[in-house]
Amino acid sequence: MRALVFDGNDLTFDAKRPDPSPTSGEAAIRPLQMGVCATDLELCKGYMGYTGVLGHEFVGQVESVADKSDKQWVGKRVVGRINCVCGKCDMCQKGLREHCRNRTVLGILNRDGCFADAFTLPVANLLEVPDSVDDDHAVFTEPLAAAYQIIRQLTIEGRPFITVLGDGRLGLLCAQVMSQLNATVRLVGKHADKLALCEKWGIKHRLLEDVGLRGDQDIVVDCTGSASGLTTAMQMVRPRGKIVLKTTVAPTPRSDDNNKIDLSPLVINEIELIGSRCGPFDRALQALSAEEVDVVSLISRRAKLADGVDAMSVAARSDVIKVLLEP
Amino acid sequence: MRALVFDGNDLTFDAKRPDPSPTSGEAAIRPLQMGVCATDLELCKGYMGYTGVLGHEFVGQVESVADKSDKQWVGKRVVGRINCVCGKCDMCQKGLREHCRNRTVLGILNRDGCFADAFTLPVANLLEVPDSVDDDHAVFTEPLAAAYQIIRQLTIEGRPFITVLGDGRLGLLCAQVMSQLNATVRLVGKHADKLALCEKWGIKHRLLEDVGLRGDQDIVVDCTGSASGLTTAMQMVRPRGKIVLKTTVAPTPRSDDNNKIDLSPLVINEIELIGSRCGPFDRALQALSAEEVDVVSLISRRAKLADGVDAMSVAARSDVIKVLLEP
Repeated sequence: MRALVFDGNDLTFDAKRPDPSPTSGEAAIRPLQMGVCATDLELCKGYMGYTGVLGHEFVGQVESVADKSDKQWVGKRVVGRINCVCGKCDMCQKGLREHCRNRTVLGILNRDGCFADAFTLPVANLLEVPDSVDDDHAVFTEPLAAAYQIIRQLTIEGRPFITVLGDGRLGLLCAQVMSQLNATVRLVGKHADKLALCEKWGIKHRLLEDVGLRGDQDIVVDCTGSASGLTTAMQMVRPRGKIVLKTTVAPTPRSDDNNKIDLSPLVINEIELIGSRCGPFDRALQALSAEEVDVVSLISRRAKLADGVDAMSVAARSDVIKVLLEP
Repeated sequence: MRALVFDGNDLTFDAKRPDPSPTSGEAAIRPLQMGVCATDLELCKGYMGYTGVLGHEFVGQVESVADKSDKQWVGKRVVGRINCVCGKCDMCQKGLREHCRNRTVLGILNRDGCFADAFTLPVANLLEVPDSVDDDHAVFTEPLAAAYQIIRQLTIEGRPFITVLGDGRLGLLCAQVMSQLNATVRLVGKHADKLALCEKWGIKHRLLEDVGLRGDQDIVVDCTGSASGLTTAMQMVRPRGKIVLKTTVAPTPRSDDNNKIDLSPLVINEIELIGSRCGPFDRALQALSAEEVDVVSLISRRAKLADGVDAMSVAARSDVIKVLLEP
């Protein structure tokens, strides 16, 4: 089969990758549409030390299953949770399956990803996509779930001031999701063209350069994807406020300001910093079905899987939001 | 008067510092005993960009007050909250007075400290020390309050596993305070002689080198005072666990590993990082009065104020816990 593969140094299009075969409990899935995420770009810089087929955002069709008892899944259009878990470790037993000690993660940790003609996931990870959600929407399930995770982690009291920091793919989703709360939400970013999307959503937005860093926000969600985002977030949030950290970046061996951060404001201002990762797929699918969130406006480019190497560099450009891959 | 002064480059003993005079609402206080804290050592490395008289831990006697209406304070033995607040800003109005936008902080921010023959604080900051608490105990009120602050910030559910990381002054206090919770508490540090103090308190303790970093602690309290402490804490805490960050360190211009930290484990494991600073003086005084906490065992050295420069370098030694200064 064909696949986009990162070997630890280079990203290449491999036209002769062996087909994956599902093991017990798994399904083989043919992607209908795939999304490029900032994490994919970071993986290609060495984040997680990952090697293998990239990709974890998809909508696809189940081609085959390993176990007869799962045969009802064959042919179904699905999205899938990316953490593949053991069900036995202390985290799984506690109900924290996304944090399974023995997990593999689609296209991120010890499991080939979805930027390919086929890939495997446990059937237990799959959700059938309702007909009301087309492929262009369904492919956003994973990142949208990650945005909804923030709501699961926060307790909202009163009517807080919330800043979503970063106008990239995830920031634009988070701003929309946070707007569903009883809160005053604004998106702050560096790109006027991306921020302009907020106009149609009725969400306040500001260029970072126009924003006073006054320590007056109750909650700041860092979706910048840059190590400097947290420093800005610490300047924006009020004492005893909360920062939700969505950004993961590859550590750099260079002695630049990446990963170099003064955390003393966090102590002095008694800020709570909350790491946030994967979220509820069911809630995301529901939001897509009810059109609670606009995802189609985020699609900047479409490319063929065979052009995936180029598509990945396009996705890294600051004027591009979402790049979708098609078989 | 005499004072220990940091001028931005050097720490010196100044025998001819002008006497402070209290302004309206303030008292002039003569310290009876003073404590050297890691923050004092960091200030001398450039933390906060502070210049002036050092010192914020004390027990003292009120010598004079600016306002007649405060005259009942004269002669009283007191400890004092170190944040001097405006009472008018948004934080003060919210009840977050320690986070006053316009605050000065004794010996830390725009206010001369207590390593002197006299200093001033607002009367509103003072607490009378009961006779049941002698000077050797009372001088620990401020750091002990900082330890109790952790309890105010945490919600304890079930019977969590808590590691206090760092066997210095603050770690030894925090370990004792955390032991009052319904929790399994251990102190982890690098110094067998300091950890040995835990024996008499019945608190579990381990050398860091003997501890597996297994991500199994529900709560880790970082009292290491070193930038690398947080990295260790992130390895110790379980997914969805909490890290309380007490450590503040001066940023270094050197490109060493100080302040260089990979926060991606925080996102991946959805850890909550909680900054923690000053705490409840009343609770600390109560604990000292009831001898709930052993502080006297922490006293390594006593020195005269006039020998304060030397005493500060002694306090920086890894085999020394608390250094007290006397007039």
